[in-house]
Amino acid sequence: MKQNRVDRILEALNAQGVTQMLIVDPMSIYYLTDVYNDPHERFFGLLLRADGKHAFFLNNLFSIPQDVGIEKVWYSDTDPVMEIVAEYVDATSVLGVDKDIKARFLLPLMEMKAAAGFVNTSLAVDTTRGVKDQEEQNKMRVASDINDQAMAVFKTLIHEGVTEKEVADQMLKIYQELGADGFSFEPLVAFGPNAADPHHGPDNTVLKDGDVILFDVGCIKDGYCSDMTRSFYYRTITDTHREIYETVRAANEAAIAKIKPGVPLCELDLTARNLITDQGYGPQFNHRLGHFIGLSCHEFGDVSSVNTRLAKPGMIFSIEPGIYLAGDTGVRIEDLVLVTEEGCEVLNHYPKTLEIIE
Amino acid sequence: MKQNRVDRILEALNAQGVTQMLIVDPMSIYYLTDVYNDPHERFFGLLLRADGKHAFFLNNLFSIPQDVGIEKVWYSDTDPVMEIVAEYVDATSVLGVDKDIKARFLLPLMEMKAAAGFVNTSLAVDTTRGVKDQEEQNKMRVASDINDQAMAVFKTLIHEGVTEKEVADQMLKIYQELGADGFSFEPLVAFGPNAADPHHGPDNTVLKDGDVILFDVGCIKDGYCSDMTRSFYYRTITDTHREIYETVRAANEAAIAKIKPGVPLCELDLTARNLITDQGYGPQFNHRLGHFIGLSCHEFGDVSSVNTRLAKPGMIFSIEPGIYLAGDTGVRIEDLVLVTEEGCEVLNHYPKTLEIIE
Repeated sequence: MKQNRVDRILEALNAQGVTQMLIVDPMSIYYLTDVYNDPHERFFGLLLRADGKHAFFLNNLFSIPQDVGIEKVWYSDTDPVMEIVAEYVDATSVLGVDKDIKARFLLPLMEMKAAAGFVNTSLAVDTTRGVKDQEEQNKMRVASDINDQAMAVFKTLIHEGVTEKEVADQMLKIYQELGADGFSFEPLVAFGPNAADPHHGPDNTVLKDGDVILFDVGCIKDGYCSDMTRSFYYRTITDTHREIYETVRAANEAAIAKIKPGVPLCELDLTARNLITDQGYGPQFNHRLGHFIGLSCHEFGDVSSVNTRLAKPGMIFSIEPGIYLAGDTGVRIEDLVLVTEEGCEVLNHYPKTLEIIE
Repeated sequence: MKQNRVDRILEALNAQGVTQMLIVDPMSIYYLTDVYNDPHERFFGLLLRADGKHAFFLNNLFSIPQDVGIEKVWYSDTDPVMEIVAEYVDATSVLGVDKDIKARFLLPLMEMKAAAGFVNTSLAVDTTRGVKDQEEQNKMRVASDINDQAMAVFKTLIHEGVTEKEVADQMLKIYQELGADGFSFEPLVAFGPNAADPHHGPDNTVLKDGDVILFDVGCIKDGYCSDMTRSFYYRTITDTHREIYETVRAANEAAIAKIKPGVPLCELDLTARNLITDQGYGPQFNHRLGHFIGLSCHEFGDVSSVNTRLAKPGMIFSIEPGIYLAGDTGVRIEDLVLVTEEGCEVLNHYPKTLEIIE
């Protein structure tokens, strides 16, 4: 187990007066044990206890031979698994449970009165995962570095007559050749008016002169995700589109310039939003400024108008303002940033100056 | 809503003395409403009530414009969604909950005392889904028909020097050309000793003379899944391998011959297992005989030594005996079958006689 991460979670639980927690999110278990397992319908859980009597519950159909430094409790499909789990829970104390634990596992524990009470304590795990340690920061840098290199290659796929889907279909191989393990999410490729939908998936739309070319793409490397958006124009650009592009770029850069420990995350959203609103496009920036990212592409926490949490060194999140004009165009510019002691480190280095692809 | 399916679920709930149920499995909701939606971390639920006061809970970020014939209750990310749900639940009765509902939705309902009790009643939904109606049976026939055609094409991909992965990589396009919407699961292609692992995924293994060629493949069409396994040999076959093949084929056919309404599912498993055991390969058939299938490739219910449920007209499941010799070979022959009033209809028609590919 990663003792330092376990200690941070136990500390956060202690602040809520909770001394034990049952974690079931496979990504959180991977975060703590380096063991990734997709249990499908079976139970897979990690019990953390303040008194150190941790336990790792595993179905004997899972292939997990490695030593993780804590007691492994194996069960079979014919065992009453939640009765086994209950034996390891301190019945005299409240049990913190993962927000994702399903009724078929939680209700039996409740019926057996396996604990003095049951509360959702996922925040303790989620806020711990939200602050990346050195090892994680390094992996995030590597994944974003591959993403920067990939963006340069993706741009070369653009040519007259190409469709969104033809471009998107070539991306996985390019990522793999650059050393990535796969996509961190299905790539978004949007031409012209399609880019007005922030979630448009690649289809058979053919590229036309004057179209925006929006790439929202990311890869996964050693378990960690990258995520970046760049918006190019094809051959020509109108004055209005240029103004939109420069407004989005200014919003991205202004928000990034504000990042340092202690800044409320909502203030970053406000900075970008005010700048876009001042140019008359407030309603056309219809989503939050960013999201946390790490082992999952969308982790707990966001950079939105309602999140008053303060930036802390080690947090990594996206800064992705956009302006979307229905039936016309859409521009988004997204970087991942790591909050540092002094300010922030931008993990993406692909240029943000306007590029017109010929 | 599919009223007939709703009625069958309410009837099954009634038999347990339950008058209301909150369903959250997106596939079960699709089964009842024709609406498929992946809610990610947001709440998406269907409340069925014996008094007909059903409600469908939807986040306003979901795009579900169609009328489903029941009240749609829209909520936004800033609304207290479970408080809204609680208003629609009869607080004086027990609430049946989906086995998959997560703690972050269930615990608030419990804390609000939204119902007189909470029980896992997923069996009512799962057993209803386990018996397919005419519309579903027709869709299952179409998906398996495509799978039969695809198997004939997959066989032509075999040639000297080819790797498992090269074969597997061509399968999606073939399915799509035959009219399928995609895979029902990632295809398993295993050559020679690799086939001794029932879940071996395609890798760079090169085909050799005397190898078994195992294809465990399926497609999805109009929401319904197919799943079939065939095992070929390449150029030559030893007497032992031939005996193994014929034993597996006899086990497949003997189990299928037993299927009719009223037969315990465990008896089908036993029939195949006894036949294989009699040939001395009992320990080498190390999995259950089959699984239910429909909207999902693995649905609730199996054909195993411990499932005493009786076969009922409309059930569709796989019959897939196998013999696996570590380091040597593996043979599995799998068909989907539909239980009929008289016996059963085998949904796959690709031949099962031994084929040696030259």
